[in-house]
Parts: sequence; C-alpha cells; structure tokens
Amino acid sequence: MQLFAIVAFSQIPEEVLTAKGITLPSIPASIGTYTSIVRSGNLLYLSGRGPLQANGKYITGKLGKDLNTEQGYAAARLCAIAQIAVLKTELGNLSKIKRIVKVTGFVNGIDSFTDQPKVINGFSDLMVEIFGAKGIHSRSAIGVASLPSGWPVEVEMIVEIED
Amino acid sequence: MQLFAIVAFSQIPEEVLTAKGITLPSIPASIGTYTSIVRSGNLLYLSGRGPLQANGKYITGKLGKDLNTEQGYAAARLCAIAQIAVLKTELGNLSKIKRIVKVTGFVNGIDSFTDQPKVINGFSDLMVEIFGAKGIHSRSAIGVASLPSGWPVEVEMIVEIED
Amino acid sequence: MQLFAIVAFSQIPEEVLTAKGITLPSIPASIGTYTSIVRSGNLLYLSGRGPLQANGKYITGKLGKDLNTEQGYAAARLCAIAQIAVLKTELGNLSKIKRIVKVTGFVNGIDSFTDQPKVINGFSDLMVEIFGAKGIHSRSAIGVASLPSGWPVEVEMIVEIED
Repeated sequence: MQLFAIVAFSQIPEEVLTAKGITLPSIPASIGTYTSIVRSGNLLYLSGRGPLQANGKYITGKLGKDLNTEQGYAAARLCAIAQIAVLKTELGNLSKIKRIVKVTGFVNGIDSFTDQPKVINGFSDLMVEIFGAKGIHSRSAIGVASLPSGWPVEVEMIVEIED
Repeated sequence: MQLFAIVAFSQIPEEVLTAKGITLPSIPASIGTYTSIVRSGNLLYLSGRGPLQANGKYITGKLGKDLNTEQGYAAARLCAIAQIAVLKTELGNLSKIKRIVKVTGFVNGIDSFTDQPKVINGFSDLMVEIFGAKGIHSRSAIGVASLPSGWPVEVEMIVEIED
Repeated sequence: MQLFAIVAFSQIPEEVLTAKGITLPSIPASIGTYTSIVRSGNLLYLSGRGPLQANGKYITGKLGKDLNTEQGYAAARLCAIAQIAVLKTELGNLSKIKRIVKVTGFVNGIDSFTDQPKVINGFSDLMVEIFGAKGIHSRSAIGVASLPSGWPVEVEMIVEIED
C-alpha cells in the first residue's frame, strides 16, 4: 500500500483510475431539497453515499449476518468510487483536490459486529490508491442498526481543494 | 417545492416563517460544558437537537414501532424549527445566512426501518421553504438504535454566514 | 464546574493536566491510509477515538448492560484524555488552541439506553476543566448498536487553532 501510494502520488488521479480499470458511475442529480455536494470556502462537504454498483443498483444487507467483512470492504470501496464520481462532476479535474480531510463511515451491522474499521478501510484504501498522500484523512468508523434502503455501509466526507 | 423555493428566495426568512404560521420556540440556554452553537470563521456549528414541540415537550418514540414515516417527517420538521430558533437567537437577522452547508440526521428506528431519508426530508424541506436555494444542503441520513431521552430523530448542522 | 472553568482559564492547559494528575498516553502512530488528525486552514479534524486506559488497553462493553452511566462517563473522559494527547503531539503547545468547536459522541448502548448526554458529559466536562471557556463546544450525542473493538464510546472532534 505504501509503495503504491508513492507511485500514485506522481500520477494524475484520472490516470490512476484508468490504470486500475475503475469506471466512474453516473450519479443521478439530486432531486429535491438536498444535494450531493456543497462548497464552503475551500471545503467540499459530500453527502453520505451507499455502495452503488456499476449496474446502477445498490448492495444491501447487514454485516455479520448477510455480508462478511471482506464483502463489507468491497461495499465501502464502491462508496468511495461513487464519491470520486461526485468530485469529478463537481471539479472537472481531480487534481484540484488538496487533501481528503475527514471521512465518516457508518456500518450497518449486528450488535456483536466490531470490525467497522476493517470495513471502512475499503473506502480509505481507495482514497490513498487514487490520491496518494493527499488521500490520507482523519476518520471515524461507527456501527449502526440500519441505513437507508438497507445499505451495509454509508460514507460521507470533507475534501479541501486548492485556491 | 421548486416553485415555492423560488418564491421564498425573494422574501426574508422571518416573513416566510410568519406566512407559514411558524412560531420559533424559546431554546433554553445551554447549561454546563457544551452549548447550542459555536462560530468558527464564517461557519456556525449547531449541536444536535431533538423534536421540540410548541408546548416545550419533546416527541419520543422509535420509527417502525411507535411512529410511522409521516410522524417521523413531522418530528424532523420540529428539529428544523428548533435549529432555526437557535440561528435567530445567534444572528438576530436570518438574512445573514449564506448557505445551509451540511445536515446530519440520526433516526431512531427498528433494525428493519430503512426510510431514514423520508424522515429527514422533514428537516431538509423546511430549510428550503424558509431559505430558498440557500437552504439546499449536503446531507447524511443514518439509522441508530437509540437517542437521548428517547427522541425519534436528532439533527445537527453546519451553516455558512455572510462576511 | 463553572468556578473551576474560570480558574483553569487563567492557567496553561499542560499545568492543569499536571495539577489534576493526568498523564497523557502515547498514541500509536496511525498505520495505513488514515491518520489521527488532519489540519485544514485553522481547523484540526480529529479521528474518532475510544477509551484508552493508562495500561494501553481499551475499555469495552455496552451501556445499559455491561456498564452503567457513571462508568460510561469515565470512559468518555478517557476518550477526552486520548484526544488531548493527539493535540499535544500535533501542536507541541496546547495554548495554541483557540476553541474546541464541535464534539460528536457515539455511545454503544442497548436500545432502551437514553442517557447518551450524561455519558458524553465525561468528555465535555474534561474539555472545560483543561481549556476553560475555550473548551465549551457544540455537540451531538448519539446512541449506536456497536463500535470498533466493542468500545462503549467513541468521540471525534473539530478544534480551531490560533493563526
């Protein structure tokens, strides 16, 4: 991971995405009274997002019952891809990103499930794969009883952009 | 909603509140080591709030068991009215608000309850009714197992004000 | 509490810690793709932390089942000591802190546990004991079904520092 981070850091994020075979999904425009992203000063606040698959459908299920930790990691990685798609639409150019500042990951699990950090690593790891050292962030990983539409994981984040 | 948002945008928030028959409650001064609102730069961080009714009492109960989605929506709307009361006390003039930046809504529900977004819409919709386009925000809606005093919903937010 | 806060305000935080017999623990350097703290402008975003004891081990258990409210308060106080240790490592001098801006406390409890605020007071109270009026913050206290490694409480925060 650390070696890859250094390599990625010298590339532009869009090229890393292509090299990894990641296609950014189309995120439906927000309908109604909230939206996917709001800018305030140099900070971008991104709404919580679930694990959107390439086929346009979301993964559902509860950790410790329907999904194991590896499947949770994969779901969190899909949340990360969806958030990068939101950033790409907002910024046009992902090199405008100065730092992934803060990530909050909510994991839908049974009461006895305590590997929330291993699940949210699926999100964190992709941020560093794509953005290198700029992708290293502060973070909280929380276990919850339920999430919208039965998602196993929902992740929001704050991103700082260049002036 | 969109039409109303445009109309509201040309009015001052206090007039919209009056036109809608909304009276802002008196929020008790925080006692102790935390407070209702803290300013940092141009951002206001508002503490999480529950559904305070006009009679000074809070709604309690769990979504999917004690309250249905419509009742949850109404409770989230009460959280929004309470947060606007906090903003009015802090700012004096609600026209100083530049943008509702971020909303985080926690919904106290049974494990199988997955309509957190429909509940938190009660908060989001009121923000746009009162502040127009400035009220459109980024958002997370999360399901949790319990909340202070048995509230069905608790909502915190970040607001940007004019220089 | 209020009297103590005034006294503390005229002292430097490190002296208050010593006077109270609090030794800051050594926080292991973050390994991997996230970290304990990220600075953006004048704001420090601290990752969520659990109740780290002086012996290097974490308290575990669920409120309302394994721990009572007083034990939860003590656990939240340990989270606060750990976060102050992170700040000390980052800043060198705790007097650089301008304001504790926002605290979010997650309490791992049974469904019927509703005293999250009394638990998180263990965190909030220590902030004011150490930083005086600068320690008064906005806050949310949330009940959740599970936390990493079975922690009873996890707390994250945002801190503003002097220019």
